[in-house]
Amino acid sequence: MEQHVNVVIIGGGFAGVQAAKALARRAPAARVLLLDRNNYHTFTPLLYQVATAAIQPEDIAYPIRSILRRMRNVAFRLTEVSDVDLERRTVQTDDGSISYDYVIFAAGSTTNFFGTDGAQDHSFGLKDLSEAIALRNHLLGTVERAAAEADVAKRSRLLTVVIVGGGPTGVEMAGAVTELVRLMIRHDYPMLDPAEVQVLLVEAGPRLLGGFQPKLGDAALRYLRRNGVDVRLGQAVKVVDESGVSLSTGESIETPTVVWAAGVEARGLVPGLTPAPHANNRLAVLPTLQLEGHPQVYVAGDMAALRQGNALLPMLAPVGMQQGRCAGENVAEQLAGRAPKPFRYVDRGVMATLGRSNAVAQIGPVTLSGFIAWLAWLGLHIVDLVGFRNRALVLVNWIWDYFFLTSGARVIIAADKKSDSD
Amino acid sequence: MEQHVNVVIIGGGFAGVQAAKALARRAPAARVLLLDRNNYHTFTPLLYQVATAAIQPEDIAYPIRSILRRMRNVAFRLTEVSDVDLERRTVQTDDGSISYDYVIFAAGSTTNFFGTDGAQDHSFGLKDLSEAIALRNHLLGTVERAAAEADVAKRSRLLTVVIVGGGPTGVEMAGAVTELVRLMIRHDYPMLDPAEVQVLLVEAGPRLLGGFQPKLGDAALRYLRRNGVDVRLGQAVKVVDESGVSLSTGESIETPTVVWAAGVEARGLVPGLTPAPHANNRLAVLPTLQLEGHPQVYVAGDMAALRQGNALLPMLAPVGMQQGRCAGENVAEQLAGRAPKPFRYVDRGVMATLGRSNAVAQIGPVTLSGFIAWLAWLGLHIVDLVGFRNRALVLVNWIWDYFFLTSGARVIIAADKKSDSD
Repeated sequence: MEQHVNVVIIGGGFAGVQAAKALARRAPAARVLLLDRNNYHTFTPLLYQVATAAIQPEDIAYPIRSILRRMRNVAFRLTEVSDVDLERRTVQTDDGSISYDYVIFAAGSTTNFFGTDGAQDHSFGLKDLSEAIALRNHLLGTVERAAAEADVAKRSRLLTVVIVGGGPTGVEMAGAVTELVRLMIRHDYPMLDPAEVQVLLVEAGPRLLGGFQPKLGDAALRYLRRNGVDVRLGQAVKVVDESGVSLSTGESIETPTVVWAAGVEARGLVPGLTPAPHANNRLAVLPTLQLEGHPQVYVAGDMAALRQGNALLPMLAPVGMQQGRCAGENVAEQLAGRAPKPFRYVDRGVMATLGRSNAVAQIGPVTLSGFIAWLAWLGLHIVDLVGFRNRALVLVNWIWDYFFLTSGARVIIAADKKSDSD
Repeated sequence: MEQHVNVVIIGGGFAGVQAAKALARRAPAARVLLLDRNNYHTFTPLLYQVATAAIQPEDIAYPIRSILRRMRNVAFRLTEVSDVDLERRTVQTDDGSISYDYVIFAAGSTTNFFGTDGAQDHSFGLKDLSEAIALRNHLLGTVERAAAEADVAKRSRLLTVVIVGGGPTGVEMAGAVTELVRLMIRHDYPMLDPAEVQVLLVEAGPRLLGGFQPKLGDAALRYLRRNGVDVRLGQAVKVVDESGVSLSTGESIETPTVVWAAGVEARGLVPGLTPAPHANNRLAVLPTLQLEGHPQVYVAGDMAALRQGNALLPMLAPVGMQQGRCAGENVAEQLAGRAPKPFRYVDRGVMATLGRSNAVAQIGPVTLSGFIAWLAWLGLHIVDLVGFRNRALVLVNWIWDYFFLTSGARVIIAADKKSDSD
């Protein structure tokens, strides 16, 4: 009787999907099981576009079973993982325990509030589709309430948005929120004055886009300020509460809308493991992406803390994709009786979009900003969406929104809260 | 100083939107305020397609402000109406009281459970987008759970769907659910057997599509039975509970999924008003759509009980659209010092789709069934969607789904439940 090797992949994000692909290609005899708490893979780089009603949620959600369809040795289970027993080699899930011969941790990251007082309860994260939809519904609702509000101070508060964190997510949100609210007022709210809209971007560091070259951070700063975003550098948010935020300068800002884009931390998948120090809850891994002392355990993507050159690799989608592929290939190497290979990140560049026709990009030694960078950004995302069924729809939607500036997905739809008794 | 007349329209459905259009055209000096608890208008005839993941929610939701954009004298407010004071001529809302000179009730209808034991708590309605999304998420989730279920009886229960009511909504749901589940199993769930899927359609009357000509009900019955739907005529659902439904025959059916399409009733907008007898909570109106004794109060759409010929007019979208237009025009007539005109429904036909290329249609004396009726249905809906920004997208989505049979919108996305303070 043939002996099957069981490989479990925890997480269907960029890293998990690439690991599954590598295993389907390189280890067709292994039985691979991918676990995720959602039945879809999310194209996370465009979450901010869902949150600002530029595209529809379903445009960036792709059913995991459809992705896996042609991978004959890969199965999927919709479940939540609560723990992993490294000694017994089992994964604990909502639906019981699953044994593995090899496991790949690829559960990604969540918002890191850094313990900021009130931030978790009173600000919006932007790490998954549910959060993006909640933020969209909230943003559209506040503008509606502002339209019905006669009191100037209350209206002004409703039309204030504070975005915390000047990295790519914060910068992209600041640009997109400004465009969304201005567009809504120009088209549908003649009773509101665009000058009443205040978008603040608060960054504790000395510049925007800290991970990019300084001239790109400066370009982003100029673009956002020119478009009316109140960018605060060297200021930190100390408290978030029902009324708004308090800054390190002592200033208080009244707002119902705080978007927390100040950082992420790895999911704490295995409570018993100690994260690497100063690594946002990430697990230290060997250069092969294996957990030290556990050659059958791999960690890929935002959960892995791996140094390359002078710094830890950043928690970015391209790193996750490359590490997922490497982890899958290394499992295949081990199954073939060979040694796993060290991971080496190939940096194809980073970019952030600033507005409907403006972006900054850094590709190797080349830096781009403005319309040409936006075209590069557009091209890259179209290419990345290859394999996504909704590619054509996203494209139609984009073209529509960018060139016709119509209402997009500006509808406040919440799913009914009927309890889903089995 | 010019004296403005205030017209309040309650509800942004088919009737309310048509009333607003008529008033914009015919009474440009009146100040019109349209109220709705959602910021979007829903193309309700396609709700079943959202519930069966054939199209995306945003495809049939159109922002009301966008619809009203070119109507200079029409404003919108997002609010919930709790009562109307006919003596003081005020509408009570969540955000306070609004005075009117004329008011048009067009708040539509909700699911009518006819007091069936447990139905409200344990079955899914299909009257608005939130309900359609909840049903979609539930349906996709049950198939996922079935895929992970080794116990045959439990799996069989998960793969059973009971639809209550053999009118157009029930018939369309039965056809679409069958197609959805079979498609999912064929593409993504090789471990499941399509023969395990049971879709039951329970109708208390002697035939399907009671409002259509008998031969069309018979055609629907043949089509659904040929496609494996277990149609029960002359049987009623007596109890719905956590385990499933009990029928009038004494039979019990185990299922987590009961879709209630057995009827609707008008919204009880004004608690003080007595509905017409045997009219599903509708208000009796004069032929001009005015409330007797209240010449400044109109009722249009599903809220109005009006006899034409031998029967009350049905609670259908075309009746609502025509009545909304008539109510708006009649207010304009009164403002011009003329008498309001009696409403006369022009029946352009009824149709129901049975599957991806099959429908039944009744247009005057002509009855159609099969592919030709489906083409007629398709054409009619495309025409009806005119003015909808998402028309092109719906079309792309349809073509995609019908001809490529891809995964459509089969993602289980719930909005985050973060409380929306303020």
